[in-house]
Amino acid sequence: MQCSGRVYIVGAGPGDPELITVKGLKLIREADVIVYDRLIPRELLEEAKPGAKLIYAGKRPGMHAMTQEEINKLLYELACQGLTVVRLHGGDPYVFGRGEEECMYLRERGVDCAVVPGITSAIAGPAYAGIPVTSRYVASSFAVVTGREAEGKKQRIDYAAIASAVDTLVILMGVGRLEVITSQLLEAGIDPETPVAIVENATTPGQRVVIGTLKNIAVKAREAGIAPPAVIVIGRVVELREKLWRLS
Amino acid sequence: MQCSGRVYIVGAGPGDPELITVKGLKLIREADVIVYDRLIPRELLEEAKPGAKLIYAGKRPGMHAMTQEEINKLLYELACQGLTVVRLHGGDPYVFGRGEEECMYLRERGVDCAVVPGITSAIAGPAYAGIPVTSRYVASSFAVVTGREAEGKKQRIDYAAIASAVDTLVILMGVGRLEVITSQLLEAGIDPETPVAIVENATTPGQRVVIGTLKNIAVKAREAGIAPPAVIVIGRVVELREKLWRLS
Repeated sequence: MQCSGRVYIVGAGPGDPELITVKGLKLIREADVIVYDRLIPRELLEEAKPGAKLIYAGKRPGMHAMTQEEINKLLYELACQGLTVVRLHGGDPYVFGRGEEECMYLRERGVDCAVVPGITSAIAGPAYAGIPVTSRYVASSFAVVTGREAEGKKQRIDYAAIASAVDTLVILMGVGRLEVITSQLLEAGIDPETPVAIVENATTPGQRVVIGTLKNIAVKAREAGIAPPAVIVIGRVVELREKLWRLS
Repeated sequence: MQCSGRVYIVGAGPGDPELITVKGLKLIREADVIVYDRLIPRELLEEAKPGAKLIYAGKRPGMHAMTQEEINKLLYELACQGLTVVRLHGGDPYVFGRGEEECMYLRERGVDCAVVPGITSAIAGPAYAGIPVTSRYVASSFAVVTGREAEGKKQRIDYAAIASAVDTLVILMGVGRLEVITSQLLEAGIDPETPVAIVENATTPGQRVVIGTLKNIAVKAREAGIAPPAVIVIGRVVELREKLWRLS
């Protein structure tokens, strides 16, 4: 079967609808079909052209969701109908977004596929809370890690080794495992007074920030009722927040 | 002195002018003054409103350039003239962009300042070369490091420790020190066959990619005449390029 459609794997950005790229928005406006995730800004769907089909591919906790294989097949079938497809991911499709699995699946079957990067919440989430991930005298390296891992992955993430090696550690999808991860870091001898920030619903009107230290952040987050999606930032850059941020 | 102007510290993205955010482009179109860096896409300056002042704050090798202190003062003075100022950085202002120094300087003096994130070449550069910085079974962590460091910074970057701790290592501004850095990694026992990619002028029409291993990349880059700006990516994700990329 000749598949003449095209699939654009587009990053929608971290939540603020104006943080999508100009290129991404243009493609949304041109698409025949948009296959979208749970965490994308809803305002972006309103930019679709009249008659465009919107297909939800996200997951709701405890409910049936499309598997990755189902999403891959869907994208392929839409492309085979000759359609221009936008596959809209939260953040950046290549930062824990599985955009690369989709793109590989399509390319293996001869379907044209292009990736349009998005602003990742790993960097913009902290920024919207007044925290730069790097800073000239404080942080010349940062790492971004997932709080979850693929079952089949051989090597496990060593959070403590990463936290020791870089100045700033950013953890995505880690709120559910915050106690486990902070315990690992403390046991490995990371300074318990290391500043930590958690940014919930980063860059959206519902953004909330909890500040603490490695020692107390898990308790503070629980008391504040922090829930996903949230970005965790660990390192001295968190202290810059007081100089960069004002309550408004 | 009451400074009624406002400064927006805006990320212009990695080079492709359509990779700026919708918010960033809107601010460029509204600005009275744009203070811009060397590595921003020139097309974006053409979006400035008629009569807007464009001030170059970049550095040319071997030529006098504005110091950071001069840039800070300039932004402050423009704000004190009541102007709407866009300070346009390449990439993201908070990823080795010194945007945080500018914002701190302004806030300390009572000037309102907001940051608009940009797409960083650390992620989009590899993506435009067919390389995802993360991938479900191959990479669940990545680190971004500068190849240069501030003189006054106490702790030096331990590239080998970082490369050992994360799955993907991305180095910005590292081409000039490629031999030194790869030697350090090899001496520390990192596998000499680890795949490495260098993406020069990432996301622009002049993009060039050199692929090699830790053992031979310095020679290959020299032979190809790779020059800044370029992004270095080290890790197994580089191998995915063959599945994600096609020559076109």
